[in-house]
Order: sequence, then structure tokens, then C-alpha cells
Amino acid sequence: MAPARRFPSLSFRAGELVKAERLVPEEVPVAFSYGGSTHAVMMATPDDLGDFALGFSLAEGIIARAGDILAIDLVEAGEGIDVQITLADSTAEALTARRRRMAGPVGCGLCGIESIEQATRTVPSLAEGALRLTPEEIAEAMQALGAAQTLNRETRAVHGAGFYRPGGQGLVAMREDVGRHNALDKLCGAVLHAGLQGSEGAVVVTSRLSVEMVQKAAALGSPVLIAISAPTALAIRTAETAGMTLIGIARDEDFEIFTRPDRVSMEGSRHVA
Amino acid sequence: MAPARRFPSLSFRAGELVKAERLVPEEVPVAFSYGGSTHAVMMATPDDLGDFALGFSLAEGIIARAGDILAIDLVEAGEGIDVQITLADSTAEALTARRRRMAGPVGCGLCGIESIEQATRTVPSLAEGALRLTPEEIAEAMQALGAAQTLNRETRAVHGAGFYRPGGQGLVAMREDVGRHNALDKLCGAVLHAGLQGSEGAVVVTSRLSVEMVQKAAALGSPVLIAISAPTALAIRTAETAGMTLIGIARDEDFEIFTRPDRVSMEGSRHVA
Repeated sequence: MAPARRFPSLSFRAGELVKAERLVPEEVPVAFSYGGSTHAVMMATPDDLGDFALGFSLAEGIIARAGDILAIDLVEAGEGIDVQITLADSTAEALTARRRRMAGPVGCGLCGIESIEQATRTVPSLAEGALRLTPEEIAEAMQALGAAQTLNRETRAVHGAGFYRPGGQGLVAMREDVGRHNALDKLCGAVLHAGLQGSEGAVVVTSRLSVEMVQKAAALGSPVLIAISAPTALAIRTAETAGMTLIGIARDEDFEIFTRPDRVSMEGSRHVA
Repeated sequence: MAPARRFPSLSFRAGELVKAERLVPEEVPVAFSYGGSTHAVMMATPDDLGDFALGFSLAEGIIARAGDILAIDLVEAGEGIDVQITLADSTAEALTARRRRMAGPVGCGLCGIESIEQATRTVPSLAEGALRLTPEEIAEAMQALGAAQTLNRETRAVHGAGFYRPGGQGLVAMREDVGRHNALDKLCGAVLHAGLQGSEGAVVVTSRLSVEMVQKAAALGSPVLIAISAPTALAIRTAETAGMTLIGIARDEDFEIFTRPDRVSMEGSRHVA
């Protein structure tokens, strides 16, 4: 299924109504099934679904590493796609035990969950690690993310999430989706799939920083999360608890640091205040 | 609970790192309970929760009108808020019957649902009605929405949804939230609460047009949906089926019509192509 499709439109520009055409992103129901039973259904852009399955499974705490999944099969199902995931035996058993304790399915990690306690689950503390970024690298990460977003350049309607490694390596992975949670899940899956260490790079996103974005980056083990827009109060508190560096409103050369500014290295920067 | 809170930050501007402060929106788990049992938990900005309960219940098909709800009580619950909704008897019975048919709770209408069929449920056809908007009114609706967004002016991090009545009445309701689905649910609740007819106005939103936005506007009975950003392919197809006028990329004086352009009246407009 193509990730975008051309539609006719009527464009009102400078006072004139003219026939036009626009490439818009597809949005289809994607179901994740483990061992034959559906876990969640999400509306998503139908590409990189293997990465999506991997990243979603990681964010939901169903798997801890890529090797916990034995196979991913994509099956067309009516209007949508059923992503059938086969887990390794011990992982499948842990999920079965978890399901017995739960009343309902878990959705995007927040919707459809049963209790307020589940929604505000604490995020594990991040390993301290050696990752540091200069202000120039933060600006470069955002710029590289925008430049890599091919689907968004054509549709202006999808979010992007990237994985940036400082020290000259740059943006080493990027994924897009109509949903910002999905784009980040896909990115986390791509990072796992490539065998990269989450702790060695920063996650960069084109959206606002709500708490789920912090939870997903923490599940990947990335200690720095950078966004084009502002964080929520709960995202700041959660990042603080996890020891994550949260950077928002990153536009052009400027940005704002909300937590753990020590990972932004001002030495060696041409900008020394 | 205040909808926003002030946090310290370090602002990197024009090459200098300076201490700053930023007002960021709160984001708390909001649970909706009917008759004592939790239906869904969502992350939301904690204001206008009565409207949120009303609009969410409408969008989920639990109620058909404001009178189907007898009482809404807000109870603080740990980190979040439990919105306890008391339904009229016949409405409560219909929900109980529906729950028996369902395996799990329904989340935001898409996440956490059990099947692909549920996700692509068809939207009822809208009544034809008499609503027409001129290009000037479309531009005015978007402009008025931006002007009314007080929380977004302070935080730059929340979405807005408005209800615009043409013919000189203007933006008669507006609600904000960190989530675009929540903002629209709150708006629909406010419209119902005020006793306004959904069929007599256009819904205006600051976000992209994914299929859930079309489903929610259709549940309100509004035949025109206008957004600052682009639609998805499924949003276009769903609007077409419902007979809804879908207008995207509405910025300054310009916009693009994807379905049912006959509700945009070019006569009497100063812009005649």
C-alpha cells in the first residue's frame, strides 16, 4: 500500500478558485496481533510496519530487544493491515501472564488503558552515559530531520522522528507517519533493527512533547529528546524523574532546555555566553 | 487544577544561554466512568472537563443529546481526575448492552479498539441543511480561532477547536487542549451544552485532519470542517461518504476544498474567479 495518494481539490488562492491536485498521506487501521490475538489497533501511515511493530512492542514493554520477536507477517485485512507478531517463547509467556492481569487491551500506551495509575507509570532511570551535544549539533539535528522528511515534503501532513548521533555521524535513522506516536515507534524500531544503541544518540521529533514521547524515548534508552515544539508539564516531570535531557522549541539555531542541561556541551562551541 | 504551569528553563538564543521561564500546559490522566466503571483514560488539559465528558460521550455514540447525561462529577484520583458520568436510565441500559458485546474498553475512538472494522466504522450521512460559507467567512473563522486561543498564546503548545456560525454571528464557541481530539471533544460538548445546533455552523481546528476529526464533527452534525493543515486520504473518503465539506490548508485568505465544494458560496463574494 502506497503511503500517499493523489486527490483532486479546488484551491482558493489569491481570490481565485482553481482545480488542483494534492498528494495526501494514507491512514489505515493497523492491528498488532501477538500469537493470534489482537492487542491494539492504530490509525497509521502504511509503511515501515516492521519497524512500527518492533518499536511499538518495545514501548509497550512487551519486548526488551529485537531478538524477542521471531517473525513479523503483514496480512491485508479488509480496510486495514493485520501485523502478526510471533514472539520468542519466554516473551510470549510473559505477555500471556500480563494479559491475565489486565482487563482490556492496551492501545497507544494511554488510550484504552484501564486506570489512571497505568497512565502515569514511572519511566526507568536512564543510564548516565557519555552522550553530549553542542548547540550546533542540536541545530544540525533539527535541520537534518526536516531535510530527510520526503513524505512530509510532498504532503505537509506527516510527523517525523529521527535518531541523531553527534560527533560527525549525523541523522542515522528517520521515520514518518500521520501520527507522532507512530513516527516515534517506527523510529525506535528502526534503531533496534539496525543494531544501534539508543544510549548513543538523541531522539529528534517534529511535534510537541507530551508524556508518551518521553516514555517512548526512555524505552529506547535515549537520554536526549529534542522537539520543534513545547513540552507539557507532565513531560517535564517525567523527563526529570528519568534523568532525560528535554529540549523544546528547537527552531533554527535556538532552543530551550527544560531538564538536565549538563548534556548540552557549551565548551568547544563557537557560542560561549 | 490550573491548565498551565510555569517551569524554569535555559534558553539558548542568538548564541547565549540564559535563565528563562516558560508557561507549559498541564497534561493529566482523565478517566471517564459511566455508572462507576471506567470506560477510557486519556491524557488531557484539565479544564472544561464537563464539556469534554459531554463531547466524548457524543463522539463515542454513548449519548445522542445533552439530556442523556443526568450528572457529571469530577473526583481527584491520585495523579489524575476521574470524571464520573451518570447516564439517564435508557442510555445506561444501552451502554451496558453494548459493553456485553465488546471485549475491551474503547479509548479515544481508535486506540485500544478491538478490530479493524470498528476503526473504519462508517459515519452517518449528514443532513443537507442550508449552511453556506463565503471565502471571507472561512478566512474569518480561522482568524477568529487563533485570536480566541488564550492558552495557546501563552504556551504555544495546545490545539484549538472552534464552532463558527456564518452570517455575522462568528466564532460562538472555542475550546483548547494538549490533544487535538480532546479539543474537538470539548468543543462538541460546549456546543451541545449551549443548546446550539451542530448543523448550523462549521467546525474549525488548528490541526491536521485525520479520520477521527471527521467522525467527531459528523457526530455533532456539522456539515463543514475547516483545518489549518492537510487531510489524510481516509479523512477525505470518510467526509465524501458522510456528505461533509472538508476544507484544509486554510491559511490567511487561502484554503483548499477536498469534498462537497457546493457549501462554499462564491456568489456575493468579492472574489469571483
